[in-house]
Amino acid sequence: MNTIVIPDPVATATTGSRPISFQSVPAAASSDPTRARLGRLVTPHGLIETPQFMPVGTNATVKALDPDDLREAGATMILANTYHLALRPGHERIARLGGLHRFMAWDRGLLTDSGGYQVVSLGDRLTIDDEGVTFRSHLDGSPQRFTPEHSIRVQEALGADVAVCFDQPVPPHASSRSTVNEAMERTHRWAVRCLEAHGRTEQALFGIIQGGLEPDLRAGSTDFLRALPFDGLCIGGLAGDETAGQRRDALDIVVERLEGDPRPRYLMGLGSPLDLLDAVDAGVDLFDSVLPARVARNGTLWVPGGRLNLRNARFLDDPRPVLEGCPCRLCRTFSRAYLAHLFRANELLAYRLATCHNLTFTLDFMARIRSAIADGTFPRLRRELQAPPASSDAAGEPA
Amino acid sequence: MNTIVIPDPVATATTGSRPISFQSVPAAASSDPTRARLGRLVTPHGLIETPQFMPVGTNATVKALDPDDLREAGATMILANTYHLALRPGHERIARLGGLHRFMAWDRGLLTDSGGYQVVSLGDRLTIDDEGVTFRSHLDGSPQRFTPEHSIRVQEALGADVAVCFDQPVPPHASSRSTVNEAMERTHRWAVRCLEAHGRTEQALFGIIQGGLEPDLRAGSTDFLRALPFDGLCIGGLAGDETAGQRRDALDIVVERLEGDPRPRYLMGLGSPLDLLDAVDAGVDLFDSVLPARVARNGTLWVPGGRLNLRNARFLDDPRPVLEGCPCRLCRTFSRAYLAHLFRANELLAYRLATCHNLTFTLDFMARIRSAIADGTFPRLRRELQAPPASSDAAGEPA
Repeated sequence: MNTIVIPDPVATATTGSRPISFQSVPAAASSDPTRARLGRLVTPHGLIETPQFMPVGTNATVKALDPDDLREAGATMILANTYHLALRPGHERIARLGGLHRFMAWDRGLLTDSGGYQVVSLGDRLTIDDEGVTFRSHLDGSPQRFTPEHSIRVQEALGADVAVCFDQPVPPHASSRSTVNEAMERTHRWAVRCLEAHGRTEQALFGIIQGGLEPDLRAGSTDFLRALPFDGLCIGGLAGDETAGQRRDALDIVVERLEGDPRPRYLMGLGSPLDLLDAVDAGVDLFDSVLPARVARNGTLWVPGGRLNLRNARFLDDPRPVLEGCPCRLCRTFSRAYLAHLFRANELLAYRLATCHNLTFTLDFMARIRSAIADGTFPRLRRELQAPPASSDAAGEPA
Repeated sequence: MNTIVIPDPVATATTGSRPISFQSVPAAASSDPTRARLGRLVTPHGLIETPQFMPVGTNATVKALDPDDLREAGATMILANTYHLALRPGHERIARLGGLHRFMAWDRGLLTDSGGYQVVSLGDRLTIDDEGVTFRSHLDGSPQRFTPEHSIRVQEALGADVAVCFDQPVPPHASSRSTVNEAMERTHRWAVRCLEAHGRTEQALFGIIQGGLEPDLRAGSTDFLRALPFDGLCIGGLAGDETAGQRRDALDIVVERLEGDPRPRYLMGLGSPLDLLDAVDAGVDLFDSVLPARVARNGTLWVPGGRLNLRNARFLDDPRPVLEGCPCRLCRTFSRAYLAHLFRANELLAYRLATCHNLTFTLDFMARIRSAIADGTFPRLRRELQAPPASSDAAGEPA
């Protein structure tokens, strides 16, 4: 089925001739077993320390924030959505304007997804064939078609540091084995076509491992993808409707089979702190999710051990910051009372301040994880944070 | 009618025992006649150079901006709305939280209006009697009553640098002489009651001149108000449905009768650049308006000699900044194409960037006016800017 010549992936990933490089960073030995690892991902737009979380800028903007806000929150790499940008304002337009980095004035790491997930979840009147996916735009109902080649063409036009293969994700828990298998095999064929189509040498390309919650399919997909000369490997089809245990089982299968593979591992779509902790323990390096920003816009602010719902009336008289000592724009300047007022008045500033906080919290959480891995205390950190709190936080509710 | 002992207003305004002071600044003689004047308003929260424009922070936030954005735009004094804050989150709550400056983290000049305008324009089922105004809240329909004493109590609780008397504004053009006269006389009685009620010594109090477009009423109101020991004089009942000529006639009557009065003159509600130019020429020192921010949120960006409608498709491919050389966050970072995209995608960042630009533009415009007054060239600047453009701006449409 695959007729292209594929160089040895491991050799390629370590030669330095690739657009990105990924080196593992030595860490102190840990008393308890963990696959958590430290890494340094070097891109044309700077260094990304891993494990790392990427905020999502769907429409070439992380909702409510500007690039200064993102830098201040500590973001070193963000994700933008190929599906959305292809439909509006159009990838060719962005290319004419100098590419996505310039368009959105973001000078750090940037990854585009392939559109696969959005095509399936947002497109109307979807038909999938072996060549690609035909659907109607969620914006104006216009007919659209995504193929592996088109996805790569769009992502090359956008010009992010990292592009991702076009895949067919399916809900992991709700899908039958035959559905998972069919989507996985199509994803494999498309992965090869993406590799063939991709020609932008300063842009990295990540493949996507599928296989749902079926152990043998997940294992087979890992073996298939790891044999291809991608710059990194995404773990797709999780962070959906599966349980935490099911996710961990699938991750363990993948990571075991990637043992010794020097390329970054990116679990797509995971964003809650406790979930991140578990996936880092399983050996994942990169994450993205809209979750911290989306719940922020709804008035949910993350704090250690819990969350505050700023729409609750009790905060209207609370002079404290959302989180004492937090360096974010919200916490160093304003009270809970002020933020609660802004949310009740539907004031735009509420969305920005809450998003600054939750992204700062998430990125600081990742930094704490890295620090614990470095000094060998990550298993202890994980145990502490995943245990039920001894006494309930005075302010927070369980996350 | 007025039984309180009123100190000589001019002597009071110049003694320095008042919460604010206002000194005129010498300017070069101008070849053409103008009443434009330079001043320095010193408040407990810093110096405000006049003529000056105050952005409006209705709900204790200038929509879409934070205090850093406002400082960067050059704002030295802003306005907040007593009516809105009394209803939500409540003035007593703001007082408990340390006052309005602290609540909204604004460390520069702050003025609260009296609520008179909003009560009349936003309140439902309004009844006005000599004691005050009864209405239903626009938020929840709850019964509310504002009196001069209540307005002052609310403004003292908010604790801005400048409070304003509770008045009864009427639409200047659409109101009969008897309506204007009745509202003016009531405003006069209420001005005296506000003076009696006001006891917060570190807070200044401005009176409001009414009288609509009736020359004798406008003159009489000016004479009545100037005789009272206010720290400044507002010119109310304009910036409504009157023509520019009618407004100028009313302003000339007011300012002629304030000749030699050292107190600041504040025309409430005016915000378009050409209107500001004319009112400065008439001798006004202070302005406020929601206009620059409101039109910004609708996608209208102000540029010299015109405006750009960023919702127009032609901007989707325009790599230029909205205004070359403009120091605002939008123009120094992003293209017209990016802003046009953000507006089409209804992205929150659009509102912030556009508002930063229009407020920077307006505040820079006031600085240019001050500079022209200082060097005696203000009449020439006014002639140049008010003349129809010789050739239409390549990008702008007439404002």
